[in-house]
Amino acid sequence: MQRIFTPGPVEPYREALEALQRPMISHRSVEFKKLLASVSEKLSKLVKLDGVSVLLSGSGTLATEAMIYSIVAPGDGVLVISYGVFGDRLVESASRRGARVFVVRRNPGEPVDLGLVEDLVSREKIDWIAVAHVETSKGHRFQELRALAGLAESLGSRVLVDAVSSLGGEELVYWRGLGAIASCSHKALGSFPGVSFVMLPEDMVGRVGKISREHPPPRYLDLSMYVESIAKGSTPFTPAISLMYALDGALDRILRIGVEKSIEIHRERASILYRRLNNEAISPLIGSQDHRSNTVAVFRVNSKDLNASMLVDMLEKKGYIIAPGLGEDKERLIRIGTMGGISTEDLKELSDEILEILGSHMQGGSPR
Amino acid sequence: MQRIFTPGPVEPYREALEALQRPMISHRSVEFKKLLASVSEKLSKLVKLDGVSVLLSGSGTLATEAMIYSIVAPGDGVLVISYGVFGDRLVESASRRGARVFVVRRNPGEPVDLGLVEDLVSREKIDWIAVAHVETSKGHRFQELRALAGLAESLGSRVLVDAVSSLGGEELVYWRGLGAIASCSHKALGSFPGVSFVMLPEDMVGRVGKISREHPPPRYLDLSMYVESIAKGSTPFTPAISLMYALDGALDRILRIGVEKSIEIHRERASILYRRLNNEAISPLIGSQDHRSNTVAVFRVNSKDLNASMLVDMLEKKGYIIAPGLGEDKERLIRIGTMGGISTEDLKELSDEILEILGSHMQGGSPR
Repeated sequence: MQRIFTPGPVEPYREALEALQRPMISHRSVEFKKLLASVSEKLSKLVKLDGVSVLLSGSGTLATEAMIYSIVAPGDGVLVISYGVFGDRLVESASRRGARVFVVRRNPGEPVDLGLVEDLVSREKIDWIAVAHVETSKGHRFQELRALAGLAESLGSRVLVDAVSSLGGEELVYWRGLGAIASCSHKALGSFPGVSFVMLPEDMVGRVGKISREHPPPRYLDLSMYVESIAKGSTPFTPAISLMYALDGALDRILRIGVEKSIEIHRERASILYRRLNNEAISPLIGSQDHRSNTVAVFRVNSKDLNASMLVDMLEKKGYIIAPGLGEDKERLIRIGTMGGISTEDLKELSDEILEILGSHMQGGSPR
Repeated sequence: MQRIFTPGPVEPYREALEALQRPMISHRSVEFKKLLASVSEKLSKLVKLDGVSVLLSGSGTLATEAMIYSIVAPGDGVLVISYGVFGDRLVESASRRGARVFVVRRNPGEPVDLGLVEDLVSREKIDWIAVAHVETSKGHRFQELRALAGLAESLGSRVLVDAVSSLGGEELVYWRGLGAIASCSHKALGSFPGVSFVMLPEDMVGRVGKISREHPPPRYLDLSMYVESIAKGSTPFTPAISLMYALDGALDRILRIGVEKSIEIHRERASILYRRLNNEAISPLIGSQDHRSNTVAVFRVNSKDLNASMLVDMLEKKGYIIAPGLGEDKERLIRIGTMGGISTEDLKELSDEILEILGSHMQGGSPR
């Protein structure tokens, strides 16, 4: 049997799996209305949002892109703080939207100087600051999010958060200064991929309506249509009903144990990996403990006989599925998700396997 | 227990339900590559397509909109032939894309004069003709699709087909002159909602690449990204893996019984309804038998004591879920889907119930 430790999709929690199998219902039925309201309210509760949580059928990228296309007008100034592939995807989406896009790129582990951000926002007339809360390609946690929200608030700008890999695993509440939060079902919430959502504070609901009238995005990405429908207990398009049931089950779970506890669980899981996978053959990519994410732990493989993608393949043969680095990091980094229905024992076993593989290769290799 | 006879979602076939429950896998795994190739090839086989069938995670609307945004450039001439709500949605999407949009609106049951279409295409420099093969709001089948494809071919235009409610239930092969076919999992294929697809003939692959470079749509709707990924055995965004498994199961089913047989089954199911629900209290909306769809049967409720939406509610109390008309048709029309895991016996029972409800109301009502 294979166990899955990728940074999403993840092994679904039992509560999600059981709910997945409920009988099909019409999306115009009373039962569906209840399901939609239930999921939406639980999502808002998760981040203490006073506003609307809009459900979409699609991946986390759909949610981040619907957020950008429904909030950013062509010509708006957008500053993206990017730590890797997913930050760069925000750049790409905002550029396609026709925004004036500015990018601050940082290496994983490096903090961002908020003074620099302040200067840029003023000088370049930045309307929106977009950032991935956890950069899935590098395991960097954008620790300055709360401070950035405060800064944005003071400057009359708003922060658009890609919380795909953070919600449920990192501290995230609706801080003033945030404009919207986009996330999805199949990461730290531990449900199945195919449902995502955008959380909109009350005062941004008018904004998405205005954008829909003046610069209409494709309908599938038009959050104002979803907001209008949700008020009537429906969705504008046929939703992935089974996956909504599953997400509802996963939300029951996280709210039952408590969001704080869920974050603590992920922190504990990640710390097992960061502590154990730290020797001359393998070590955490990020030095700064403050910026190591709880949900996606990324390691540099330093063995000269075995690169990261070989390690991933060898683990797969033993039934452990982890992810290599993305793009040019493929041979250099491994990425381990700590999310979903796995245990600390699983992570200990996994790290033992990794150490054993690397150890046997170190011994078998030529002297360094 | 409730039985679902809506025009989508439908009661999934057993093959889809069983496949839904397979264990989660990584979308970067070898197993996923096989799944993706399997689904894509089976879809192409379904319509005898020489090209690429691209999988999306989302509803049928996502597929039709990705088709429009990835093929139509702003400023292109688009002619939509509309028979109702879903035809009008094509108008809306093409307008949002910035196309020059022309509409020919017809009442359900009315044929379209292809001479008129020919004149319009030449006069208005129409690049693309868009049409819903089955108009889900009225149950109209666009019987002239094959002839329209031939006409488009001769005029240097191409037809973009919304086959959401037709694929697997109506005759549809990749006829020359078609530019793309968009459809989804949860209609006549009988799987779960949340996966959809666009079938592109070989010579349109270059087109979506060109549009992506010159007029990039949102990434989630950019078919060229999916085409590039599928060649490498992956998807650009995390896919709804469980729903892809389910669709694969449903595709195995339809290819095993044969597409012709599947169409015949839907024709037979619909004919039960059209034949039985035809008296002074209820009758098929569409007179022309050629234009009555096999998949969505729509009826006018003529009782003066009971309108359509009351009938829908009374049936729901007895465990039969059908749909009322959309928008202003809500009190006037009922819509019954003949798709998914239901039997002809189910449809006979349903029609008996409808006749009984209407009969008792006729008797109880004042003399007409």
